[in-house]
Amino acid sequence: MQPYHSIRWIDGAVSMLDQRILPHRTEYLTFRTHEEVAAAIRDMVIRGAPAIGAAAAFGLALAANRSQADSPAMLRDDLASAAGVLRQARPTAVNLFWAIERVLEEAANPAHETARAVREAVVAEAHAIFREDGEVCRAIGRNALDLIPDRARIFHHCNTGGLATVEYGTALGVIRSAHEAGKAVHALLDETRPRLQGARLSAWELIQLGVPFTVLADGASGHIMRTQGADLCVVGCDRVAANGDTANKIGTYNLALAARAHDVPFYVAAPTSTIDLSLAHGDLIEIEERAAEEVSHIEGTAVVPAGSPVANPAFDVTPAGFITAIITEIGVARPPFGESLQAHVAAARKRIASDAINPPS
Amino acid sequence: MQPYHSIRWIDGAVSMLDQRILPHRTEYLTFRTHEEVAAAIRDMVIRGAPAIGAAAAFGLALAANRSQADSPAMLRDDLASAAGVLRQARPTAVNLFWAIERVLEEAANPAHETARAVREAVVAEAHAIFREDGEVCRAIGRNALDLIPDRARIFHHCNTGGLATVEYGTALGVIRSAHEAGKAVHALLDETRPRLQGARLSAWELIQLGVPFTVLADGASGHIMRTQGADLCVVGCDRVAANGDTANKIGTYNLALAARAHDVPFYVAAPTSTIDLSLAHGDLIEIEERAAEEVSHIEGTAVVPAGSPVANPAFDVTPAGFITAIITEIGVARPPFGESLQAHVAAARKRIASDAINPPS
Repeated sequence: MQPYHSIRWIDGAVSMLDQRILPHRTEYLTFRTHEEVAAAIRDMVIRGAPAIGAAAAFGLALAANRSQADSPAMLRDDLASAAGVLRQARPTAVNLFWAIERVLEEAANPAHETARAVREAVVAEAHAIFREDGEVCRAIGRNALDLIPDRARIFHHCNTGGLATVEYGTALGVIRSAHEAGKAVHALLDETRPRLQGARLSAWELIQLGVPFTVLADGASGHIMRTQGADLCVVGCDRVAANGDTANKIGTYNLALAARAHDVPFYVAAPTSTIDLSLAHGDLIEIEERAAEEVSHIEGTAVVPAGSPVANPAFDVTPAGFITAIITEIGVARPPFGESLQAHVAAARKRIASDAINPPS
Repeated sequence: MQPYHSIRWIDGAVSMLDQRILPHRTEYLTFRTHEEVAAAIRDMVIRGAPAIGAAAAFGLALAANRSQADSPAMLRDDLASAAGVLRQARPTAVNLFWAIERVLEEAANPAHETARAVREAVVAEAHAIFREDGEVCRAIGRNALDLIPDRARIFHHCNTGGLATVEYGTALGVIRSAHEAGKAVHALLDETRPRLQGARLSAWELIQLGVPFTVLADGASGHIMRTQGADLCVVGCDRVAANGDTANKIGTYNLALAARAHDVPFYVAAPTSTIDLSLAHGDLIEIEERAAEEVSHIEGTAVVPAGSPVANPAFDVTPAGFITAIITEIGVARPPFGESLQAHVAAARKRIASDAINPPS
């Protein structure tokens, strides 16, 4: 276990590390209502698609515990209302919606005949989502091992480590897994403007994991690849469409363009919970436009003249054609992604269903 | 004339707008020695290849005026020593070396038979370099007009305006010229990490010129091109090799990669003084590595954990194959650049020689 957590359920409340003030201060905040959790997601106390999913699930667990409902129907109404609040928090990461649907489905199970049974099932399902994310991330790390040379310079964008998930990380988990397997990896961290998750969060995590790294401005990736080379890129994702088009933090597509120009393999690390088979392609993914202040101000200081118009798309879409493979907890999905992703999602659903019947000891 | 100046010769001293504190404060600093000018270039009080050239020329003029030498030979020795100091200021922009050589050549002219004659010739040559830069930039703007549609969304990187030159600008001058010609241009400004010249300086200049613009994180360019399109990119340069390979502010190459992927024409605005025919290709250009603090700290606040390794290449090289055309004061140089650049440089030298015989009234 690492010496920090993105999110935990502690004594019936939700504890989150406030990622907005890292790396300067390590402060945990406690949330007791789903409204507070929704605000924490919106304000990016917690971020990263898998972590957001766990947060939303715990948000529903809080709502279930706080509800005064004394019938399953009334409790389900309260949960539906809480789900509505949580769904508004952020639009792009599909894990938010995936986790909410999964908890609501469990709540709707007619086998739960009392409010108390529904309540307990909701809390248990949220914990299952939380627990599974750790297992899923470790499986992604294992599945990626064959793709990583014994010595490897690896580009990474944004933060996708323990902070972006419940503990191990997706793309940063791939780097971590290679490091733990004894490979000599060196991470090249895009600082990731505007919110600098690469500089602030990924560097912070890699220091604690002992993984060598270098932070660079996002604009330097092509130059570094052209003059010094790189072995691969690995990035996370907020939503993967059925054809493999991948929405991820803004700047991912520019990195993919540089990788393509220099024949550097470009991998996406994706829990199947981030794959949205309901969307045929990436241009159907809603791209969140966040506040101009994220670009216009850094650490509270303006870096543009007052009143300057600013664009701040929080995500971009990397078309499937730029992606070498998508690494899931099931294995390595290769093009054509239309087929391979469907197979991975089906296999993952089967595994969850089988675990529900035979829970891991 | 615009209501601000990057550099001026005022009462025998050199005045520069301190670009490090824009857009927050507008403060002019006065320099009276070539050592002070060299430090101002190194510390980026002034930056931008043409402005650096003018600064170096004025630095030699200061050295000439302060020298106690009473023979041409002794004064030439003092100038050679001052040139040595100025050459150390920054390595990549060739205009620094070009301006120094031009002033030293004038000083070496045997027609100047007294120390006073050499002194006056050096000051006059520095002023000629200064004055010509304004004319050269306006000519680049005029020469680019045919390349700009009547309505145009134009990507721009770093700052290349009046602040980066003596007054009009190179790439930003192209945008300005199109705006002044009545075209409906909208500038898409890469903020340009690490030093944020796009956000801090280009936005500041375009506000005063009334040119509409949007500032965006460097990582957003590919996404904006893919989803909203763009009509062209225009960037400046710090040194262009004989084959057209172009060194410019870090991040330029990533923008060129995005432009290529989306069939967006990619133009370089280059005074011929920035073309270095002595270098066969771009990998011979020395790329300055600047202090880690430019990446690790923003406005004085750390954005990486203490001790994080950081790479900070200040420039990159965009291979000639990515460049649609290079716009000089002579005209529009097209591939193969090996031939066209040589012709532009020869024409410019001829023009300067002819102006020296028939100075503009």
